[in-house]
Amino acid sequence: MSKPLKIALVQTEVLPGRPRENADKIIRLMSEAKSNNARLVIFSEMAVPGYLLGDTWESASFLSDCLSQNERIVAASKELNIAVMFGSVAVDQTKRNNDGRLRKYNAFFTAQNGTLSAPADAPYPFSIKTLLPNYREFDDSRYFFSLRKLAYELNRQPEELLQPLSIIIDGENYLIGRLICEDGWGDDYDFQVADTLVSNCLDKYGRSLDLFVNISASPFTLGKNQKRHRVFGENSRRHNTPLLYINHTGIQNNGKTIYTFDGSSTVYDRSGTILAAAAPYEEEILYTEYNKSSGDIVALNCPQTVTESSCESESIYCALRYGIKHFLDSTGISKVVIGISGGIDSAVTAALYAAVLPPENLLLINMPSRFNSATTKDLAHQLADAIGCRYAVAPIEESVELTVKQINNTPVHFAGETSNLKVSDFVRENIQARDRSARILAGFAAAFGGAFTCNANKAELTVGYSTLYGDQAGFLCALADLWKHQVYDLARYLNDTVFHKEIIPQGTIDIVPSAELSDAQDVDAGKGDPIIYPYHDYLFRSFIERWDKATPADILRWYEDDTIDSKIGCVSGLTRQLFPTPDKFIEDLERWWKCFSGLGIAKRIQAPPVLAISRRAYGFDHRESQNGVYFTTEYIERKDKLLSSN
Amino acid sequence: MSKPLKIALVQTEVLPGRPRENADKIIRLMSEAKSNNARLVIFSEMAVPGYLLGDTWESASFLSDCLSQNERIVAASKELNIAVMFGSVAVDQTKRNNDGRLRKYNAFFTAQNGTLSAPADAPYPFSIKTLLPNYREFDDSRYFFSLRKLAYELNRQPEELLQPLSIIIDGENYLIGRLICEDGWGDDYDFQVADTLVSNCLDKYGRSLDLFVNISASPFTLGKNQKRHRVFGENSRRHNTPLLYINHTGIQNNGKTIYTFDGSSTVYDRSGTILAAAAPYEEEILYTEYNKSSGDIVALNCPQTVTESSCESESIYCALRYGIKHFLDSTGISKVVIGISGGIDSAVTAALYAAVLPPENLLLINMPSRFNSATTKDLAHQLADAIGCRYAVAPIEESVELTVKQINNTPVHFAGETSNLKVSDFVRENIQARDRSARILAGFAAAFGGAFTCNANKAELTVGYSTLYGDQAGFLCALADLWKHQVYDLARYLNDTVFHKEIIPQGTIDIVPSAELSDAQDVDAGKGDPIIYPYHDYLFRSFIERWDKATPADILRWYEDDTIDSKIGCVSGLTRQLFPTPDKFIEDLERWWKCFSGLGIAKRIQAPPVLAISRRAYGFDHRESQNGVYFTTEYIERKDKLLSSN
Repeated sequence: MSKPLKIALVQTEVLPGRPRENADKIIRLMSEAKSNNARLVIFSEMAVPGYLLGDTWESASFLSDCLSQNERIVAASKELNIAVMFGSVAVDQTKRNNDGRLRKYNAFFTAQNGTLSAPADAPYPFSIKTLLPNYREFDDSRYFFSLRKLAYELNRQPEELLQPLSIIIDGENYLIGRLICEDGWGDDYDFQVADTLVSNCLDKYGRSLDLFVNISASPFTLGKNQKRHRVFGENSRRHNTPLLYINHTGIQNNGKTIYTFDGSSTVYDRSGTILAAAAPYEEEILYTEYNKSSGDIVALNCPQTVTESSCESESIYCALRYGIKHFLDSTGISKVVIGISGGIDSAVTAALYAAVLPPENLLLINMPSRFNSATTKDLAHQLADAIGCRYAVAPIEESVELTVKQINNTPVHFAGETSNLKVSDFVRENIQARDRSARILAGFAAAFGGAFTCNANKAELTVGYSTLYGDQAGFLCALADLWKHQVYDLARYLNDTVFHKEIIPQGTIDIVPSAELSDAQDVDAGKGDPIIYPYHDYLFRSFIERWDKATPADILRWYEDDTIDSKIGCVSGLTRQLFPTPDKFIEDLERWWKCFSGLGIAKRIQAPPVLAISRRAYGFDHRESQNGVYFTTEYIERKDKLLSSN
Repeated sequence: MSKPLKIALVQTEVLPGRPRENADKIIRLMSEAKSNNARLVIFSEMAVPGYLLGDTWESASFLSDCLSQNERIVAASKELNIAVMFGSVAVDQTKRNNDGRLRKYNAFFTAQNGTLSAPADAPYPFSIKTLLPNYREFDDSRYFFSLRKLAYELNRQPEELLQPLSIIIDGENYLIGRLICEDGWGDDYDFQVADTLVSNCLDKYGRSLDLFVNISASPFTLGKNQKRHRVFGENSRRHNTPLLYINHTGIQNNGKTIYTFDGSSTVYDRSGTILAAAAPYEEEILYTEYNKSSGDIVALNCPQTVTESSCESESIYCALRYGIKHFLDSTGISKVVIGISGGIDSAVTAALYAAVLPPENLLLINMPSRFNSATTKDLAHQLADAIGCRYAVAPIEESVELTVKQINNTPVHFAGETSNLKVSDFVRENIQARDRSARILAGFAAAFGGAFTCNANKAELTVGYSTLYGDQAGFLCALADLWKHQVYDLARYLNDTVFHKEIIPQGTIDIVPSAELSDAQDVDAGKGDPIIYPYHDYLFRSFIERWDKATPADILRWYEDDTIDSKIGCVSGLTRQLFPTPDKFIEDLERWWKCFSGLGIAKRIQAPPVLAISRRAYGFDHRESQNGVYFTTEYIERKDKLLSSN
């Protein structure tokens, strides 16, 4: 009966682009794990450099800094007398990537007694990521050389390079199947890493693996954990082998889009059952014991077995709260100004910041013009009172008047003559929006010593229903990955579950959404936005979040065969009710498709960073080129046929 | 003696994301080539869909639109009785990419008599791009399945899949080596496509290729054509085989960065000599005749053999002029407003737009505050007079005063008390900058029915020496890929060579660069920007354009061994002259490194699109994550050693 192996799964925050700080923390936690008698301690993928670093990967001296930090960790395995597994970048100074720069690998390191452990015939003393994700925010193949290319270079088969790690701890020999993140998600690849590791293990050692270890740098996405439990659980079941999943916390970004990392590290037993899971977004060490002779694994702490709430609003709230707090910390912003209109988006944004900032560091500003109703002004005031933070009212009428007069009265000289420009009502609307953000909010924020927020939601961002340098401005757009209905759900969740009182006035939840930039948007007359959220939320979602992004050709096809409601996911019957005739449906569809693929893109190019929660966020997750509006031939033919037949 | 083969190399503008329009044009030009007795007509890479489309590649219905356009072109080869080669996207509906979406290839199609021609044992009736670039703006491996992966899937060697195309035209059999763009740039790959094609050709046919055909979608980059001539010429020489290079014109973008495509299609004879070249940025058809029996190739038109000027300013001017004109066309902007300060950047921007817009559609606005000197106000007026376009003066003092007063006097309520914010001098500076752009320029542009420009240069963008929603705002940043010294060179070029008169006042070229936002920036007192361009232009360039991006560790090493001037490329001796002591050097280095990797990134995330000319442009060419400032351990140790030793 062999002594069980005590393993520490470390879920900790990784600071992207800060190898020294990360290594310091890793070594500190190795020592903590050792003091708790762990014999093996495991950290996440890219635990040293961080993962989303953009082209910092092209800096040779940044890379050598990472390598020297890797070495410190390897040395610590001797000083602390504990085996360690961690993910980091590996460099082969003698070779080049296909871009001519240093050869880099996304690597899985194992160290013991101050030296790296690897199979005797391995090309390197570490294993490398086999499946390199190259979609959404992932750019692995931009920076890291693939196992397939390496195999070709070495004139070997890729499968040969996938060998289990044989490691001896306290006299016991363990066979470990090393996986890096995507290696565990092989459905769409012609290469099954886990299966190959198992069969190579049987060939080489005559027995199967003791454990799978998957180290990841996996950003939060709604519903992803549930899918992981299915995929990873099934893998453990199929191979009758426990799997240890180690993911880190923190936030990382690619500039335009910010991702939260929820950790949710998990221990799966050989039946695929979740034995233990670290709390989402918490820094925790999971201790487990693996018994080689029985093949059993037990959890020594963290009885929790749920990695994500089944309540969508709760998951969204946790991600946004964590993302906002850490983005403020990472950018050094401690004071925030929010323009509040009395509407739902700014109210929910204010409530979210109220959950992370002390009230004295939060300043809400209502900026009425002649078009703002007493109703919304009161709602804004109510919100500020309920939150109990700083509050100011800064009217824009005087400044807008000055601007309109200045534009109308400034002589424009040309060819010896002078003329004047004329401000139309529409131009005046945008002057108001810019006056609020670029003049009031930016000015107050600077004087306050802080930054101001952008409160746009995903529906508005999709069709560019916002003004550049106006309501689209801000240092962060926290709601930009939420559809309007998700914003309303979050509002109720904040009142009911987070604050246990009516922080967001019921009137704000009930009132018709409106920009209040003209008499045409008079909320008291029930007039507001041109976007019909119960329908357009779902139509717009099909443009961007659907796996095979929908175009008007698909949507018109669905309208014709009357499957559109189920295809886009809106309430059954709603589409025909809103658009009883094809011409009305087509008019609406083309209006918004033009906004989405036209000016909407131009505005998103200059939009603030977006906090991602969905499977497709704007910014640098869903990547866009500004190529103007296009309708496919199928669409044009369907449209002509449909309209002529009516 | 066989009849020579007349070939038409078509260099035409490709509209990204507009397959139908591109196919219409291709078919029209096929017929033109036919009427000129060509028997083979060749178009560029991705001539049907365009190349930089972002995640539009994920739309199944967009892809089927592309496929139906491909079919039209294939059919036209029969109707017009001419063989055609063109690049487009190919789809295998039965397979998936690794992201689970439709299997896509970057493909080279050859059609004759209405059917596709390919080697008998080829997996598909088209050839696919072998080397998929995945650096700078290139994302090929995000969207297109590689030949290497396909070979693995088919259980064949990649080399086997690289076969010459045997095609019979007018009874003669020609062996063609098909290359797609990067396939001709193999230096950094372990896979030489041209060599493989040649050896496979010898094995299979007992003789070498008749021709190499390289179809490309290759954006303009300073100096790239010269390098191409070396690489492609050497390839023709080595294999004693002519090479036809077909690139398209037009502009394409990835949202944040806009690329011009200069075409510069070229005929290389078997000695590697340039026989003919299409004019950069012009739509042209090059006609050549290939004589199979002699192996000779002759150019029938376009005697030009230079594809790019050796004068940097001329190359830059051609790229910017073309890029601005086409970006205006593609976005439907016909009227432009430019804020002119009397300084060099806005003057050069104005001169560039004057070269593409009629004077009545160009409105220059000078926006003085109390800090603007009579000197610069006069220079702005001189510029407008010299251009002869619309001109207006719109002072900002009154509005800025109103804003400062409003911020200072608005009561801020908190915990039952009220207080006031205070506007500092620095805050006032940024209020001025935002007032000019977000209030005046945006308002005037909207009333004028046009858009306004951003005039920032690359040095300013590097360190964020600009104000968000202020001078950093605009619909396009045409100078954002030019260092300050390149802006000055361009100014002289515009006066001397383009306009043949002093459009840009000499005073503007001579005056000290200054933002004139405070008394500290009084140009008449010779005071201006904190950036010392003759040094910082080159220091900043090493941060981003250097192949192995430099960090302070590299730069300090160069300072220590006194190679910094040559390493960064500034005037010899300048660094020591500016920073005689290490502490001063380090203070300056850290100041700007913090700006570059800190707030500079935050500002670039919301910057306008950048027109690219260098080997590394901001936006989505040089990709950045907002991770804050980091100094490597090597830097810290060198710094401590250096400072303690002094």
